[in-house]
Amino acid sequence: MTPVERLAVIGCGLIGSSVIRAARAKGAATSIAVYDSSAEVRARVRELGMADAVFDTAAEAVAGADLVVFAAPPAAIGDAVAASAAGLKRGAILSDVGSVKGAVAEAMVAAAPEGVFVIPGHPIAGTEQSGPDAGFATLFEGRWAILCPLADDPAYLEAVATLTAFWQALGSNVELMDARHHDIVLAVTSHLPHLIAYNIVGTAADIEEVAEGEVMKYSAGGFRDFTRIAASDPVMWRDVFLLNRDAVLETLGQFTEDLQALSRAIRRGEGDKLEALFTRTRAIRRGIIAAGQESAEPNFGRDKK
Amino acid sequence: MTPVERLAVIGCGLIGSSVIRAARAKGAATSIAVYDSSAEVRARVRELGMADAVFDTAAEAVAGADLVVFAAPPAAIGDAVAASAAGLKRGAILSDVGSVKGAVAEAMVAAAPEGVFVIPGHPIAGTEQSGPDAGFATLFEGRWAILCPLADDPAYLEAVATLTAFWQALGSNVELMDARHHDIVLAVTSHLPHLIAYNIVGTAADIEEVAEGEVMKYSAGGFRDFTRIAASDPVMWRDVFLLNRDAVLETLGQFTEDLQALSRAIRRGEGDKLEALFTRTRAIRRGIIAAGQESAEPNFGRDKK
Repeated sequence: MTPVERLAVIGCGLIGSSVIRAARAKGAATSIAVYDSSAEVRARVRELGMADAVFDTAAEAVAGADLVVFAAPPAAIGDAVAASAAGLKRGAILSDVGSVKGAVAEAMVAAAPEGVFVIPGHPIAGTEQSGPDAGFATLFEGRWAILCPLADDPAYLEAVATLTAFWQALGSNVELMDARHHDIVLAVTSHLPHLIAYNIVGTAADIEEVAEGEVMKYSAGGFRDFTRIAASDPVMWRDVFLLNRDAVLETLGQFTEDLQALSRAIRRGEGDKLEALFTRTRAIRRGIIAAGQESAEPNFGRDKK
Repeated sequence: MTPVERLAVIGCGLIGSSVIRAARAKGAATSIAVYDSSAEVRARVRELGMADAVFDTAAEAVAGADLVVFAAPPAAIGDAVAASAAGLKRGAILSDVGSVKGAVAEAMVAAAPEGVFVIPGHPIAGTEQSGPDAGFATLFEGRWAILCPLADDPAYLEAVATLTAFWQALGSNVELMDARHHDIVLAVTSHLPHLIAYNIVGTAADIEEVAEGEVMKYSAGGFRDFTRIAASDPVMWRDVFLLNRDAVLETLGQFTEDLQALSRAIRRGEGDKLEALFTRTRAIRRGIIAAGQESAEPNFGRDKK
């Protein structure tokens, strides 16, 4: 059974265009309408022919939709819901894909009209690329989609079941989670890693004794790995750090404390402490590979010929 | 022309076994002798049949060798050279693959007998795996090998030319560099990234509010990338940080300063500063891809089906 009849996607970047392509490839919706705030993106989406209809306003795109997925940068989602409100039908499910849930859920609820179901969501999947050309139909396969329900009455739970079926049709595993807990978990598994990657790439570019060309030439020693997530969408990530500030700063504080201890161990020549940490971290990767969230190939499989 | 007649490799982990496999696959040496300090590794190397002979002492393995490549952990290289000294022939070239050059070069020179050419070296290539099974013949293709010559008399320069031809035969580009500069460049492009990766994986594992299973499940948000280099050989990396302490602590100091500035920008809600950094870092990755040191595929090509 098709989980959703009429799907509308608001925002057609990497994630929005992947939702569209996956929904079409896997028959997760009968029809797909799209809106993006950029005229250039709308033109490109029409050209790519990935949706049934591309509209010039959000309210037109959501008209009659059973499920609306907001895939705009996190800080823009509240406004996008407000701009859609006039077109929403009673009983529509409103969800999103933002990497922050607490602040975005509040903004969605504040902007949504009566009689719709707001169910904040977040697929834990992506690449470092952006825009409607970057999306692909298999992005969500085997990945987790987290939903953060805001109510538990029967009608709402039925809407959660529909949204769950939609993400499962796209190939994802679905987990329900409190929005606050989501924001702490993602601060650790996604936001802090991005912050650290952006920072180290900036530090390497600015370091006086080493030319930028040398940083690039010799990046296969490890640095190149960090440049991948440091190439992610700047506006989206600006929003994530501002909207999940408290959890990000808390995890960053713990990271910094640990780094100071490591720095002290190097300064004092405490090789046993270094080796103990470096041995312990190996097990985490094995766990991630066993959980099906990472390639077991050396070097992510990118170099072996 | 075969660059080297008789090759000896001392230490047969990821890098040593890749040198052996590459030298054989590409005809870079006529015969290959091997020694490893672990009896278990020696047995495995015999089983794999990758070399012409596996010896139970270093001195036997290097007997008659034109080129000896020391591929032991950095802090063990001085002792390995000393243990080989009795077997070395006059005019032999001694090189290594260690990620630190200043301290290792000193140790090699101190341990080497008269009449041999010590030319410290470092191929900028690797994976997160260890041991003789982890190596492969194409590891060095398209990567840089840095040599740090210690003299400039004609006989020494001829030895440098031979070693250069050897690495080129393995598929590498060769660059000559002062050992001190090497250690600063690699602190930025390799040692600091590893230190940060080890640290963040440790922080994530210890954080109280988030279960280790959650860290693994939701690692596709970015964290999993860091676990790759944090799975690298613990003993080798312990040695690198202890032997390149000053350059590592200096670059770590700059990283920490930059991170504090970023933290302050988040705390103060300075979105423009965040966006400016996040935009700038994208260009570095494009440069690395253009330099042929990274895959242009999204997600390192590991997810797209």
